[in-house]
Amino acid sequence: MSDWTLDYDGFEPGQEALREALCTLGNGYFAWRGAAPESRADEVHYPGTYIAGCYNRLRTEIVGETIENESLVNVPNGLVLQWRIDDGDWVRLADVDILEYRQQLMIKHGILKRSLRYCDPQGRLTRIEQQRLVSLDSPHLAILSTVIHAENWADTIEIRSALDGRVLNAGVARYKDLNKQHLRSVNSETLDPDSFALTVATTQSHIRIAQAVRTRLWRGDTRITPAPDIERRDGYIAHRYHLELDPERALRIDKLIALYTSRDHAISETGLEARKAVSVDQDYDELAARHITLWKQLWQRFDVDILHDDPRVESRTKQVLRLHILHLLQTTSPHVMDLDVGVPARGLHGEAYRGHIFWDELFVFPLFNLRMPEITRALLRYRHRRLGEARAAARRAGYQGAMYPWQSGSNGREESQHLHLNPKSGNWIPDNSHLQRHINAAIAYNVWQYYQVTCDVEFLSCYGAEMILEIARFWASLASYNDSLERYEIHAVMGPDEYHDAYPGSEQPGVNNNAYTNVMAAWVLLRALEMRDILPSQRFAELCQALNLASEELAHWEQVSRRMYIPFHDDGIISQFDGYDQLAAFDWEGYRRKYGDIQRLDRILEAEDDTPNRYQVSKQADVLMLFYLFSAEELGALFSRLGYPFEYETIPRNIDYYVQRTCHGSTLSRVVHAWVLARADRPGAWPLFMQALESDVADVQGGTTPEGIHCGAMAGTVDLVQRCFTGIETRGDVLWLNPRLPEGLKRLTLNIRYRQQILELWISPTALRISADPTTGQTIKLGIGTQIHRLRPGELREFQL
Amino acid sequence: MSDWTLDYDGFEPGQEALREALCTLGNGYFAWRGAAPESRADEVHYPGTYIAGCYNRLRTEIVGETIENESLVNVPNGLVLQWRIDDGDWVRLADVDILEYRQQLMIKHGILKRSLRYCDPQGRLTRIEQQRLVSLDSPHLAILSTVIHAENWADTIEIRSALDGRVLNAGVARYKDLNKQHLRSVNSETLDPDSFALTVATTQSHIRIAQAVRTRLWRGDTRITPAPDIERRDGYIAHRYHLELDPERALRIDKLIALYTSRDHAISETGLEARKAVSVDQDYDELAARHITLWKQLWQRFDVDILHDDPRVESRTKQVLRLHILHLLQTTSPHVMDLDVGVPARGLHGEAYRGHIFWDELFVFPLFNLRMPEITRALLRYRHRRLGEARAAARRAGYQGAMYPWQSGSNGREESQHLHLNPKSGNWIPDNSHLQRHINAAIAYNVWQYYQVTCDVEFLSCYGAEMILEIARFWASLASYNDSLERYEIHAVMGPDEYHDAYPGSEQPGVNNNAYTNVMAAWVLLRALEMRDILPSQRFAELCQALNLASEELAHWEQVSRRMYIPFHDDGIISQFDGYDQLAAFDWEGYRRKYGDIQRLDRILEAEDDTPNRYQVSKQADVLMLFYLFSAEELGALFSRLGYPFEYETIPRNIDYYVQRTCHGSTLSRVVHAWVLARADRPGAWPLFMQALESDVADVQGGTTPEGIHCGAMAGTVDLVQRCFTGIETRGDVLWLNPRLPEGLKRLTLNIRYRQQILELWISPTALRISADPTTGQTIKLGIGTQIHRLRPGELREFQL
Repeated sequence: MSDWTLDYDGFEPGQEALREALCTLGNGYFAWRGAAPESRADEVHYPGTYIAGCYNRLRTEIVGETIENESLVNVPNGLVLQWRIDDGDWVRLADVDILEYRQQLMIKHGILKRSLRYCDPQGRLTRIEQQRLVSLDSPHLAILSTVIHAENWADTIEIRSALDGRVLNAGVARYKDLNKQHLRSVNSETLDPDSFALTVATTQSHIRIAQAVRTRLWRGDTRITPAPDIERRDGYIAHRYHLELDPERALRIDKLIALYTSRDHAISETGLEARKAVSVDQDYDELAARHITLWKQLWQRFDVDILHDDPRVESRTKQVLRLHILHLLQTTSPHVMDLDVGVPARGLHGEAYRGHIFWDELFVFPLFNLRMPEITRALLRYRHRRLGEARAAARRAGYQGAMYPWQSGSNGREESQHLHLNPKSGNWIPDNSHLQRHINAAIAYNVWQYYQVTCDVEFLSCYGAEMILEIARFWASLASYNDSLERYEIHAVMGPDEYHDAYPGSEQPGVNNNAYTNVMAAWVLLRALEMRDILPSQRFAELCQALNLASEELAHWEQVSRRMYIPFHDDGIISQFDGYDQLAAFDWEGYRRKYGDIQRLDRILEAEDDTPNRYQVSKQADVLMLFYLFSAEELGALFSRLGYPFEYETIPRNIDYYVQRTCHGSTLSRVVHAWVLARADRPGAWPLFMQALESDVADVQGGTTPEGIHCGAMAGTVDLVQRCFTGIETRGDVLWLNPRLPEGLKRLTLNIRYRQQILELWISPTALRISADPTTGQTIKLGIGTQIHRLRPGELREFQL
Repeated sequence: MSDWTLDYDGFEPGQEALREALCTLGNGYFAWRGAAPESRADEVHYPGTYIAGCYNRLRTEIVGETIENESLVNVPNGLVLQWRIDDGDWVRLADVDILEYRQQLMIKHGILKRSLRYCDPQGRLTRIEQQRLVSLDSPHLAILSTVIHAENWADTIEIRSALDGRVLNAGVARYKDLNKQHLRSVNSETLDPDSFALTVATTQSHIRIAQAVRTRLWRGDTRITPAPDIERRDGYIAHRYHLELDPERALRIDKLIALYTSRDHAISETGLEARKAVSVDQDYDELAARHITLWKQLWQRFDVDILHDDPRVESRTKQVLRLHILHLLQTTSPHVMDLDVGVPARGLHGEAYRGHIFWDELFVFPLFNLRMPEITRALLRYRHRRLGEARAAARRAGYQGAMYPWQSGSNGREESQHLHLNPKSGNWIPDNSHLQRHINAAIAYNVWQYYQVTCDVEFLSCYGAEMILEIARFWASLASYNDSLERYEIHAVMGPDEYHDAYPGSEQPGVNNNAYTNVMAAWVLLRALEMRDILPSQRFAELCQALNLASEELAHWEQVSRRMYIPFHDDGIISQFDGYDQLAAFDWEGYRRKYGDIQRLDRILEAEDDTPNRYQVSKQADVLMLFYLFSAEELGALFSRLGYPFEYETIPRNIDYYVQRTCHGSTLSRVVHAWVLARADRPGAWPLFMQALESDVADVQGGTTPEGIHCGAMAGTVDLVQRCFTGIETRGDVLWLNPRLPEGLKRLTLNIRYRQQILELWISPTALRISADPTTGQTIKLGIGTQIHRLRPGELREFQL
C-alpha cells in the first residue's frame, strides 16, 4: 500500500528537517512536527529529536510594530517523552548505536509511526514503537503512544513526560536575528498522578495557550500507576515515573495532550477546558478509531485515483498527490470552518514567511471549491473580516476601495518586508514586493470562483459582493487615464514575477502596466458590475448605499473595464509590462553552465552586483498566469471587449516566448507552466507536472521544504489532475468538461461537488462517465464540447471523447 | 412621529432604572445603558446618572466553579463625562434644580437624545443637549455628543472625560451576595491630548477588554484643543480640560469610544486595535449618518406596519412593536453573525439571569427566520459549538446523545441554580428547574424551523442534523418502556410550567409524563428519522458512522416515536402531566382578592408555607405550548400517528381548561395564550396581545424590566403579528398563509424572506396581496386554504379571504 504511505527506512541525519516537515501532523487547528535539533537539546536532552521531540504549532498570527514580530508561534512542546535506565543519561539518538530505524507517515489515517532499535553503550538492546496523531475528531487533542521493549536487560527505567513552554521560534536559520521568544509562562500545576497542565501567553498579543497532559502507563496489559516525581521550572513541568522493566513485558506510555487558546469559541477559561479535556476516559485506540473514521470520510471526498501505463509512475503519482491532499487538509481541515484563519503559504509545517497570508489561496481554493466549498467559504470570510484594514490601507496610500496587503498579518495589516537578505551575498536588498497589488485581483477571483461552483448568493450578499465591489473600486482609483493612448494605465506595481521590481537604473520602484495586473483589474471591474444582476435588488441597493456607490461610479468602472491598456511587443506578444521587450536578453546557457541550479537567479545576479531587472528573465509565470486562470474562450471575450486582438495562436506563441525566459524560482511556476502546456503541448507538460509533484517531497529548491511545505504547489498539482486533465470549468450555470489526459494516463476517477450535487467522474482517453447522487441537488447543466446536457439526480451519462 | 420614538418628558426619579433599561443602546456586539444610581456615585460623582453615567455591557459569558461566577460582565464605563464650574463640585442632578428634562429614544435611528435645563444653587442656568449611539456600522465604536449652553453665566468650566474600570455587576438587587467584581486592571495610558486608553481583564476567564477614548471639544464652530490634566488611579483614567464658557458660544464635547476584547477576530492586540480605532478621523455626524443608513436598511427588512380603527391603538401598537424590534436587533444584530453568542433571556439590557441562555430562542428565532435567517443560523451555531458539552452532560446523567442545559453558561455547561430566593419570604428554596429537559426539544425545533424557512441543506449537513440526531438519541434514552401501558414514558422532568417541580409531598423532584415534553420528544424523533431523506446520502452515512448510529437504533427511535405515552384526563383533556387532574382546585377568587397581583403565586404560596405543587395552577402555558408551536393539522397527524384521538374540539377545550388555571407568571405566557386564542377566540386574544405588548414598556411584572428586557416576549409579540395574524406556516416546501386579522385591524403589511425570495405581504380583513422580488429566488409554492399556488419572481397575486 505504498500509495498510502510515506515510508522512510533507515536513519539519515542530513534529512531530518525535511522528513519532519513532511511528517508533520495537523488537523486545521494545530499541528505537531518533530523538533529542530537545536531546540534546547542542551537543556532538555530529548531522547533523540526524531523520537519524541516536537513542537506543536499554533496558528496564532501576531502583528506588531517591528520586523521582530511574527505571525506564527510555536506553542509549548507537549511531545517531550524521555527515558533513562538506572539513573543514567536521558537516552539520545546521538549517544546510541542505531540498529533499525523506520518512520512511516500513514497518509490514509493521518498517523505517524516510528520504530527504533538501538544498542546503548552498556550493550542494552532496546526497541521503541511509537504512534502519534493529532485528532481530527477532537480538534483540541493529540496523543502519543510509545512502547518500550527491553530486549536483553532488566532494570529500573525512569520516564519523563513534560510540557515545555520554553520553546522558541527557531526553525528558519535566516530569521536568526529576529525575536524568537514569543511566550511567557503564566502558570503550571499538577492535577493528579496522571495529569498536569501548563499555561503560557504570547508576549505581544496576550493570547493564552493552555495545555494539559495525561500520561498513562501499562506493563504488558496491566495498567500501572506509579506515583510521579514532579519537576517544575519556569515554563516547564514534568512528571517522572520510576518503574521496573524487563524483557517479559513491554512498557506502554500513552501521552494525551489537550490544547486550548483564548481565541477558541465555546470555552470558559483555557486552563479549565484543557484540564477537562484530558479528564475524559479515552485511550489511544478509541481516539485513533474515531480519527481514522473521519479521515476515511475526508478521503472519500478528496481522493483522486489514476491508472497509468507505468506502474511506478502510477504509484509515485498517487502517493504524492495523496501526501499533498493530506497536508492541505492538515492545514485547512473542516475545523477551519469555525476559525478565523487563512492559508499560510507554508501550511502549519514550518516557520518560513512567519505564517503570513499571501496569494496562495488562488492555487488552493479551486481544489476545495469542488470538494468541500464550506472550507473555502470560511477562508474567504477571513479576508472579509480584514476588509476594514484593507480599506484603511487604500486610504493611506491615496486610493479608494480596499487594498489588501501582499503579506497579510493577523489583523490584515501589510507585513511585507522592506529589506530581504541574499544569503549568497550577505547583503540586505530593498524589497518592493508589497507592490504586488495583484493580490487584490486574486481575492476577487477567489470569491467569484467560489460563487461559480456553489451559486451561493447568500455568501455574495453577506460578504463576497462587498469585497468584489471594494476591490473594483481600488482598481478604478489606481488606474489613470492616458490621453495619448486613450486608455487607462496602472503604474508602479509588481507582477507575480518578483525578479522585476523596478526599471533598470530607476529610483522609482515598480513597473508600469503589468499585463497580468491590468487584465485582472479589467476582469474584476466586470465582475463587480455583474453584481447588479446577481444580488437581490434590495441587497445591491443596500450595499451601494452603505458603500456610497453612485451610478456615476459604476459608469466609470464600465469605462475603465473597456479601456484598460495592455502592452504588446511589436510582434504581438503580450508584454509582461511596458518595456519588457527593451530589456537585455539573458545568457541562459552561460549561467546554467556556470551555476548549475539557476532557480534563484535574483540572488546570483545580486551577488555579481547585477540585477534581474536588466534582463528578460522571469522568476515565475506572469503573463502565463492569464492562461492558467482563464480558458481561451473567456480570455478571448475579455480581450475583444477591450478592443485587443486575441487569436488562436496567441496562447501557444506567448507560452513559447515566456517558457524560454522563466527559471521557476517559485514552486508555483511549474504548476502554472504544466497547466498551460497541458493543452498546447501535452508531452512537454508531463515532465513539468512530475517536477511540480516532487517540489516538496524531494525538496527541489534545496532547503525550502524543511522550513515548511508549499501549500500552493501542493494544491496546484492536485488541481492539475482535478481541473486541468478533466478540463473542468465552472462558468455561468454550466459545469464544462473537456478531458484531455496526458500520454500514459489510462484512467482518472474522482468525486466532485457542484452546486450541492455530488458527482462521480470516470475518465479514460476516449470516454467520460459522470453520475449524480440520487438523494440530493437539482438537475445540473453539463457542457461537453459545444453541447449543453442536463444531468438529473441519480443519472449516469457517458460521452465519447 | 411618535410611532418611532419612545419619549419621556419630565424627570421621574422612581422610573430611572426602567427608563434606562428601555433606552439601552446596542449593536449586537456591546450595549450602553445608563448606570444604576448606586454605582460609585460616591466616588466619581456623575453629573446625574441620567446624563452621562452608563455602563457598557460586554457579552462575555463566564462560567466558573461556584454560584459566585457570572456570565455577563459590565465593562469599564466609557460614558463618564462630568463638568464643574469654577472649581465647584462636579454637577449632579440631585444637587440642582431641574427645570426641563426630556429623554427620547429615536427608534428608527437607534439614537438616544436627552435634554436638560437646570439651575444650580448659585443661580446659574445651564442647558445640556446630548446624543449617543452605539454604531451599527462600526461595531467597536460608540459616541456621546454633549452640548453645554451657559445661559446666564460666564466662567471657567472643567470637563472630565474618563474610562472607569472599577465597575461592578450590581444591577440586580437580589444578587447582592454574589461576587460583583469581575474585572482586574491591566494598564492605562495617555495617547495624546485627545486620547487615552484602558485595558482590563476578567478575573476568571482572563478575557482582555481594551477601550480607547478620544475627546474632542468645540466652542461654537471652532475646535479647541486645551492641554488636559491627566488623572490616573488603578483601573481609572481621565482627561480633564479647563476652558472658559459664556452664553455666546456653546461648548460641544464629542467622546468617541472604541472597545475590543481578546475574543474578537481579525485583531492583533486588543489595546492596539482600540487605539487604532479612535485615531480615525470620524466625527459624530459622520458616524451617525452611517449608523442611521444601516438602521434604515434593517428597518426595511424588519418593520411591520398596521392600520387600526382606533388611531391611538394603532400608534401605540406600532410604537411598541418597533421598540421590541429595535431591542431585539440591538441584542442580535447582523454583527452576531461572526460572534459566538446566544440570545440572553434579558438581552444585553440587564444583569438578570446573569446572561445565561435559556429556551427564549424558541420565541425569538421565528422572527429572524423570516427576516434575516443568517442571524438564526449564527445563533444555532452557538448551540452546535456546545454539542460536545451537551453530550458530556448526557453521559454524566446516564443518558445517551446530547442533553443541553436549561441555563447554559459560556462553555455550554449547566448553570441553573440549585436554590433560589423568595424575596417575599426571604427563604432559599430548592430549585429543580434544570429538569426542564424540554429545552432540547426547543433546540431541535429551532433547527427544523430554520431549515423549513430556508431549505438550507448545507447547514443541516454541517451542523443541524447532528444536533437533531443527538437530541433524538437523548430522548430515546430518557424514555422507558412501560409494559402495562405498552408505551414509552418520560419520568422526573419539569415542563415549561415552573410551578410544578415535584408531586406534593414527594422527595423525588420532577413530574412524570409532562404532555408537552412527551409530544415534543416524539416529534424530535420523527424529525431525526426524516434526516435520512433530507441529507445527501453520503453525508447521512458519514454522520451515522461518526455518531455510531446503527439501523437498529433508528428502528428503536421509530418505535418510541410511535408509542410515546400522552396522559389524558378522563374527560379527554390532555393532562399537563400524570396526575395533574388529581391536584387540588385552586381558590383563584380568594387569592386575587387577598393579593391583587398573583402572577408570582409560587412566592405567595411559599410564604404561606404552601406550594403550587399541590394545585391545578400553572405559571405559564404548558400543554398550550403545543398549539403555539404546531398547527392543528400538524398536531392531528402527530397524535394520530401515536394512536391518540385529536378532534376538532381538542384545541378549544384544552385552551378553555388551561386558560382558567394559568396566572401568567412569565412574560412568555401571554404571548402563547394570545396566539392560541387568536384562532379559537379572537376577541379574547386581543387584550392578551395588548398586555403582552406592554410587558416591558410598562414593566407589568413590577420591577423585572429594569433588570433587563424580555427578549422572548418582545419577539413573541412581533411574531404574533408576523405569523399568527397572517397564519404563516412553513411546512414541507410550501409557505402557507391563512390570515385572520383581529377585530379593528384594517391592514397589515410586512416583508418576509422565504427560501431566498423576498416577499411583500399586504393583508386586509378580506384580501391578501403578495408579491415576489423580480431579481432573486426561484418560484415558490404558496398554500392558501387547501390550494397550492405558484408564485414566480416578480409576480404579484391577490387572494380574497
